[in-house]
Amino acid sequence: MTTYGDLNIIPRTLLGPGPSDVHPRVLQTLGYPPVGHLDPQFLDLMNEVQDLLRFVFQTENALTLPVSGTGTAGMEAAFANFVEPGDSVLIGVSGYFSERMVDMAGRYGAHVRRLDRPWGEVFTADEIEDALRTQPAKLVALVHAETSTGALQPLADIASVVHRHGGLLLADCVTSLGGLPVQIDAWDVDIAYSGTQKCIGAPPGLAPITVGPRASEALSQRKSKVSNWYLDLTTLAQYWGPARAYHHTAPINMNYALREALRMIQEEGLEARFARHRAHAELFWAGLEEMDLGLHVARQHRLPTLTTVRVPAGVDELAVRKLLLERYNVEIGGGLGALKGQVWRVGLMGYSSQPRNVLLLLAALREILGR
Amino acid sequence: MTTYGDLNIIPRTLLGPGPSDVHPRVLQTLGYPPVGHLDPQFLDLMNEVQDLLRFVFQTENALTLPVSGTGTAGMEAAFANFVEPGDSVLIGVSGYFSERMVDMAGRYGAHVRRLDRPWGEVFTADEIEDALRTQPAKLVALVHAETSTGALQPLADIASVVHRHGGLLLADCVTSLGGLPVQIDAWDVDIAYSGTQKCIGAPPGLAPITVGPRASEALSQRKSKVSNWYLDLTTLAQYWGPARAYHHTAPINMNYALREALRMIQEEGLEARFARHRAHAELFWAGLEEMDLGLHVARQHRLPTLTTVRVPAGVDELAVRKLLLERYNVEIGGGLGALKGQVWRVGLMGYSSQPRNVLLLLAALREILGR
Repeated sequence: MTTYGDLNIIPRTLLGPGPSDVHPRVLQTLGYPPVGHLDPQFLDLMNEVQDLLRFVFQTENALTLPVSGTGTAGMEAAFANFVEPGDSVLIGVSGYFSERMVDMAGRYGAHVRRLDRPWGEVFTADEIEDALRTQPAKLVALVHAETSTGALQPLADIASVVHRHGGLLLADCVTSLGGLPVQIDAWDVDIAYSGTQKCIGAPPGLAPITVGPRASEALSQRKSKVSNWYLDLTTLAQYWGPARAYHHTAPINMNYALREALRMIQEEGLEARFARHRAHAELFWAGLEEMDLGLHVARQHRLPTLTTVRVPAGVDELAVRKLLLERYNVEIGGGLGALKGQVWRVGLMGYSSQPRNVLLLLAALREILGR
Repeated sequence: MTTYGDLNIIPRTLLGPGPSDVHPRVLQTLGYPPVGHLDPQFLDLMNEVQDLLRFVFQTENALTLPVSGTGTAGMEAAFANFVEPGDSVLIGVSGYFSERMVDMAGRYGAHVRRLDRPWGEVFTADEIEDALRTQPAKLVALVHAETSTGALQPLADIASVVHRHGGLLLADCVTSLGGLPVQIDAWDVDIAYSGTQKCIGAPPGLAPITVGPRASEALSQRKSKVSNWYLDLTTLAQYWGPARAYHHTAPINMNYALREALRMIQEEGLEARFARHRAHAELFWAGLEEMDLGLHVARQHRLPTLTTVRVPAGVDELAVRKLLLERYNVEIGGGLGALKGQVWRVGLMGYSSQPRNVLLLLAALREILGR
């Protein structure tokens, strides 16, 4: 068979929809020798990771932990645990990841009702309330930060509507957690999940999830076993809680890295970190406007973490991305689903959110597009 | 909130049931800066990882890839994809992980039939055939290397029996792959999975799985969608195959590390590696016998990778493990389930399988037990 040489990867500047660049401190911590998943030292680290996750989620939820998979495993954990066959689920669909929610909820036997909007738009509390008045839902799922469109779904006034109609609110925070406010307790969101590889600043491999008291109560009232053994939150909570009952072997090194990344968020401070993400997004948007490039999402609903740039007429979007990658070692993303070929997706998240990256990308785009 | 300091973990020598020690080359590779999951460089690396996994699984199976979770996610992927509600599944149960299979298969709606044996024993082809003659099964599941008991289930003559009765053979190779022969093609095993943190020599975080032609055909004939979106092998194969269709963000760094660990297996050679695991197990067993310590599994069924040592009467098994950890920074495991309190579990796997580790553990046990 072929004999393979040393890993020989040209480093990139990651300005796509994720993974984002990882600070050397986090990478160094990732490579520390593993200890066992029941080693008292690792159990202490688990407590620290949970405490730091609560800080970033702005919650006191006891059931807050990283599940052992990438962001999509967070989505899977949410639907596997909070949907039973026959449950009515309402999903606001205006992007690729809310479409994924529809597919996933259906696989767990939910009666899914869709509330559709064009990709890049968001939902109002009134729309959700109207839909629930027609027919209540056990679970309402929204994407807080839609990675496919760059739209920011306001959540602050949604939970009260959902609760008034007896449901639980589930929010996908993959592209928001650690980069913009995610106030689980203040907004009264019942279930939220994220990934480590975007605004958190760690490599991909873990999916933080948090579950509030209403949702924990619902979990304890389930009639059927969670069909997904690996992501069963009730048994996971026995490993992450005081019982420390063995469930599965945790990805030790990824938890080292997550701890370090969260510690860096703590050092920076949440407000400063959000301001940094906002400032560099503004800088990037201003540069795009100077080049007369259009943005897909209206300013008031625009994510500071992920920007969708309209591809100008006559420009080959893939060719531009290839040039960025090959000539400058800069990665940005293309459009997904309904936006395929129409937008570029630029992430300024975590360690990638730096002025030097904004300047570099703007300069490279100027050169390639001749603007 | 509490301010946390630098990661401050005392390194251990990992001689438990896994994770095992990881070679510095693999840890260094783990910490290399991530690139995107659709970067051409990463796509090339995926091909290399698949090729190297086929080498270790001794198979030509096209559908061979690491799923993005730890070993249990491999088990989950196997049952999620190859069980449909109402399917008859026969499981040979003689340890903790085969019990887990029963639970998991049931959650996916299988009619599970158990073939029970005392923990530490294995099944013969005749027993399987008798059971299938009474009632056929779509899937027969066995644990090749039972991490809870230290028993090695022979597989070479089982597949023909299972196939004669129209079923598929699924094997858990978590504690065997990379440490002793796993000959997927020669033995005609249809589905097998493993974990990276034992004999493969990488940190925990990925679960290699391989699927043969009969099982691939069965997958294409499913009537229902796989309820587990994250581990749906049909869509995963579109990302790992030539289509390169985005599925989920792969754990980039873990794949770097897996490639390096597999490359080290290739450098060592499979036969030499198996001989090394065997030789150090024999060395350890001889030392235990000198100390008059009993082994739980009869020699002909004993795993070279994981040894279950009987706790002598009057000895506090937990106290011994605590002393090993606190005084010598050596981790071994305790008994699980039916063997709780009765055995110690000692893994000599991957980079942990070294003469110096055998000598150290024997000396420490001699000192602690006064033998």
